[in-house]
Amino acid sequence: MLETLDLGIKMKKKDYKDKIESLEPELGKLQRYFRDKGIPMMLIFEGLGGSGKGRLVNNLLLCWDPRGYSFHYVKIPEEQRERYPMLYRYGTRTPSRGNISVFGRCWYREIIDRGVEKDFDDPLFRNGLNMARNLERQLADDGTLIIKFFLHIDRDEQKKRLKEREKDPASAWSVTDYDWHQNKNYDSYVETLEKIFQETDSEYAPWVIVEGTDWRFATYKILSTVQGAMKDRSSSTGQSRYSRSSLPENGDMVTSVLDELDLSKDLGKDDYKDELEKYQEKLHFLELEVFHRGIPVVALFEGIDAAGKGGAIKRLAQSLYPRNYEVVPVGSPGVWEKEHHYLWRFWMELPSRGKIKIFDRSWYGRVLVERVENFASPEEWKRAYREINELEEHLVRFGTVIVKFWLQIDKKEQLDRFMARKEDPAKEWKLTDEDWRNREKWDAYMDAAREMLLRTSTINAPWTVVEGNSKYYARIKVIRTVCEAIEKALK
Amino acid sequence: MLETLDLGIKMKKKDYKDKIESLEPELGKLQRYFRDKGIPMMLIFEGLGGSGKGRLVNNLLLCWDPRGYSFHYVKIPEEQRERYPMLYRYGTRTPSRGNISVFGRCWYREIIDRGVEKDFDDPLFRNGLNMARNLERQLADDGTLIIKFFLHIDRDEQKKRLKEREKDPASAWSVTDYDWHQNKNYDSYVETLEKIFQETDSEYAPWVIVEGTDWRFATYKILSTVQGAMKDRSSSTGQSRYSRSSLPENGDMVTSVLDELDLSKDLGKDDYKDELEKYQEKLHFLELEVFHRGIPVVALFEGIDAAGKGGAIKRLAQSLYPRNYEVVPVGSPGVWEKEHHYLWRFWMELPSRGKIKIFDRSWYGRVLVERVENFASPEEWKRAYREINELEEHLVRFGTVIVKFWLQIDKKEQLDRFMARKEDPAKEWKLTDEDWRNREKWDAYMDAAREMLLRTSTINAPWTVVEGNSKYYARIKVIRTVCEAIEKALK
Repeated sequence: MLETLDLGIKMKKKDYKDKIESLEPELGKLQRYFRDKGIPMMLIFEGLGGSGKGRLVNNLLLCWDPRGYSFHYVKIPEEQRERYPMLYRYGTRTPSRGNISVFGRCWYREIIDRGVEKDFDDPLFRNGLNMARNLERQLADDGTLIIKFFLHIDRDEQKKRLKEREKDPASAWSVTDYDWHQNKNYDSYVETLEKIFQETDSEYAPWVIVEGTDWRFATYKILSTVQGAMKDRSSSTGQSRYSRSSLPENGDMVTSVLDELDLSKDLGKDDYKDELEKYQEKLHFLELEVFHRGIPVVALFEGIDAAGKGGAIKRLAQSLYPRNYEVVPVGSPGVWEKEHHYLWRFWMELPSRGKIKIFDRSWYGRVLVERVENFASPEEWKRAYREINELEEHLVRFGTVIVKFWLQIDKKEQLDRFMARKEDPAKEWKLTDEDWRNREKWDAYMDAAREMLLRTSTINAPWTVVEGNSKYYARIKVIRTVCEAIEKALK
Repeated sequence: MLETLDLGIKMKKKDYKDKIESLEPELGKLQRYFRDKGIPMMLIFEGLGGSGKGRLVNNLLLCWDPRGYSFHYVKIPEEQRERYPMLYRYGTRTPSRGNISVFGRCWYREIIDRGVEKDFDDPLFRNGLNMARNLERQLADDGTLIIKFFLHIDRDEQKKRLKEREKDPASAWSVTDYDWHQNKNYDSYVETLEKIFQETDSEYAPWVIVEGTDWRFATYKILSTVQGAMKDRSSSTGQSRYSRSSLPENGDMVTSVLDELDLSKDLGKDDYKDELEKYQEKLHFLELEVFHRGIPVVALFEGIDAAGKGGAIKRLAQSLYPRNYEVVPVGSPGVWEKEHHYLWRFWMELPSRGKIKIFDRSWYGRVLVERVENFASPEEWKRAYREINELEEHLVRFGTVIVKFWLQIDKKEQLDRFMARKEDPAKEWKLTDEDWRNREKWDAYMDAAREMLLRTSTINAPWTVVEGNSKYYARIKVIRTVCEAIEKALK
């Protein structure tokens, strides 16, 4: 792609002025149209050092109302990059509906660096490409318009520009070792870039290579490309989605582990107390190890109302230090969370190294409550199985231990617990009308749970179904499973 | 305070169990009451290494529904602390209405460290105390219940505990040099702590010293103190505010710079073009210096509708790199922003070192639109002058350059601009019904502006009033003023 560029291309001052004068208001108008229609847009800019990226991006930004865009230049020191999964630092900066996110530096910089340093089979290089592809497809499926620009100059031009900047005392400090490293290893960068373009160019998130020698031509190409893409989108009928990811078909839901549970499993009070003390002590020890060795842990809880999630979580949390764990209670999304991809609010909750995050409900809401209550369309929740598996794969590759619990009780037990809550003044507040309404949809929730367990049980992030009729039995099974999963990871 | 403690105090297992069993549900109930009434609560925990803070805080947290609290353990590496003002990393974590923020580590740790290392006249030590006092008073004025706990053990007990932990291979790594440094310099820590208690203990944010030798007693003291304070608050009538900061009286608004402006000031087109090019070039040079030397810059714009804020901001931004500047457009607060102190949304927009933040409207909205439209009560907006001065003082002490512009046009000019917008299809969207409504309140806005200029012009953060009838004149005055302010700081 880069080899065949005509880097000598130029634009006359007069032509430039005419073109830009008509593009500027047009871009402003399209921004207001996108806002009205709630269409998110994500623009990515990468380029070689000295390609003039800053000034070129500014020429684009100045066409727009600052209330509608945010600019992200994500510069994270090497040693801190490793503290959080990539999705944490990038997914959270993706645009909300009607807004524009412009990246002056993003995941591709990390991927490029890794590709140049290591070979193309390096896990971090591959994981980066994976994240890029998955994230971009997920956002495109969600209606986001994505364009990726690469600003290119040739080796001699780069050298010339860096030298000029070095000559001027006012800007000499701004030329970095990184810039010169690029120039000296120009071929290696070009090879890495070609590889990245090949693997991440797609119909819904295309790369546009911009000849960067002449700033007027480059500005014009950027502005007109964005304007063209926005215009195309604005004239396409309905909510156009570029990605056509293959939707999984509903498989035969003949049998499920849910239908074969032995809910009579029980545990006596004395045994419970002994076991609880034993496992809480063990978990506290494992918590310190996990912190010490920097392993992130996700323990997530789903289940029918009153299945005992809260009680199980409390017993887990009792043995932990608050600085090492956090309980993340997940309710229905807030107004601003709805303005984003549904996974957005979880990206910012992903645990850093050494941290234990306990999710009281989770991203699985998409294929449970949102499916049953029709908050998500069938297209959306069917797509979610794949999206969720991709999210968890991303975490596993980062070294995260994932434990997922489905707590199951039978209908009679649920009724008993509802009645007990109703009569206990200290617990009454826990029982809401919604609980009763959900109970009427018991079968629909079970169908959703069966399909979820089938489609999202993976080797590295398996589900544990917990027989919940006996609270004692369930709590011990939960804490034991968490301990075992961590022990396995520590080996 | 610390000298007279009875650190030998203990609690019997049986007594503990009885007390805690009644406190736990009581605290849960109070949490729900606070949520219903929208009362925010902030709890701070500091303590000596080995005082068992983690476990004690956990005993409190487990009484509560995780949906209603967040735990903050703010550990920021030394070299990064200096990148942002303290308010950025702490103010943003203060509780929203009805919620509880628990700090396991916060600003006091930074202050303590500084106090031990340096003398009590050290600027960072003093600025920290200043921030603590101002922030706590501002939050209390806004209705927040604040309690600060210090967990204390004596020197021998600390030594014993650290040694025990070191003996166990599972926890030996967790004993840090910092812990031993504390033990060896115990007296110095105690002296610093006494100084800090003395300077930051207040009726509305009291310090409670907890004897930490016996964990049962400590847990009981913490739980019962919180329960008592919450109960007091819940039974006090109305929205009880603990702080009684003296409200400034409306001064005599006899004369104001606003009434003596020469709005006929003008600049020809050719001069404008020359000057603009000159100052844009200069600003670009200064931008690089500011970035290089790590100076944060705030340029904020207020003014009557159509006074030309947008145009002036655009001319400033044209010469800058997007990675070094950001335009922060300030509209009416969003739903979740209203759940916090009104300054909260600005705390998270404070510029880091080397960054230029351009505010299109700002925190002054409190004393302008919110005053005129009665969105804030007189008590609230009168209090705001002091709060804003404190915010800006905090920034100046951090080394921030602050430039504040009030853009003024006369009523006729405003009408001309409104009509021009109405007739231009490319600008029509800029004119809203609100603009016409605001125009009717011209005099009220002028009164508010006069008082604002009077009360918030300080030596280090002065207002610049810009004669705006001529756009050319105004834009040059703005960019020149910004250049001069930065130049002054660079000297």
